[in-house]
Amino acid sequence: MTEQPRDDARPESAEAEEDYDPTASSLKGSVDPAVMQELLSIRSSIDNFDATLVFLLAERFKVTQRVGWLKAKHHLPPADPDREAAQIARLRRLAEDAQLDPAFAEKFLNFIISEVIRHHQAISQDHHARQKPDAPTDGPAGGAASAEQA
Amino acid sequence: MTEQPRDDARPESAEAEEDYDPTASSLKGSVDPAVMQELLSIRSSIDNFDATLVFLLAERFKVTQRVGWLKAKHHLPPADPDREAAQIARLRRLAEDAQLDPAFAEKFLNFIISEVIRHHQAISQDHHARQKPDAPTDGPAGGAASAEQA
Repeated sequence: MTEQPRDDARPESAEAEEDYDPTASSLKGSVDPAVMQELLSIRSSIDNFDATLVFLLAERFKVTQRVGWLKAKHHLPPADPDREAAQIARLRRLAEDAQLDPAFAEKFLNFIISEVIRHHQAISQDHHARQKPDAPTDGPAGGAASAEQA
Repeated sequence: MTEQPRDDARPESAEAEEDYDPTASSLKGSVDPAVMQELLSIRSSIDNFDATLVFLLAERFKVTQRVGWLKAKHHLPPADPDREAAQIARLRRLAEDAQLDPAFAEKFLNFIISEVIRHHQAISQDHHARQKPDAPTDGPAGGAASAEQA
């Protein structure tokens, strides 16, 4: 018996994606197969939306990270209440256009803001610890840090 | 003096978007104009990401709403722990690929789940109140309801 060599050239992410079972469900066996098929079909769309959301959020955090560096470099305050108020009003209007609950859109923005604030102190502390105000740092560990409150 | 007639054909959303001031900031006047210009440039990208996120979330909720109707029609339980566990593991891996904090990705999914669960009962109650198990309803008021836990 020879063991097949493992394809180490395959990226980790491809392996991880293969581990995912899109049919995973606690309902298996207790649901009519046709209904389960319809459910799985809809869920495959949800999975596509979720992947898109994750990559989009990652990109948004990269951008707010740039704001974090800019604010740290020029010693600007992390909070900007007028900006935040304008953002919230805009997102609520866009949510109405999209038939999304405006209250949810505002909660979503606040959720993002809280995450950004959580990371802001790390950028600021990292920046001042290095004492190199003219050179942007690599930011804190984790990669998702940002100093823009939204 | 004659008052100009108001262009009532213009959609409300266009008016709302015009109300938005992308330069709104509490930092105005206290920041070097060149720095403010750079900040506004980055913020315009953040605004674009946020609009995309809002429309994407709206579409995701439309899809979970379909799951809500399906589950109400066939009297399926709202929760599906095996599905949820698979989703969380997948999103954490995708977050790593995207250089997004996996813990944040999981928090984000839980945030969405909590919103969906909040609306689920409305669909289920609405469905059973109508006593028409074969005809999907228009869903609850608000348009963002859904019964899929994620």
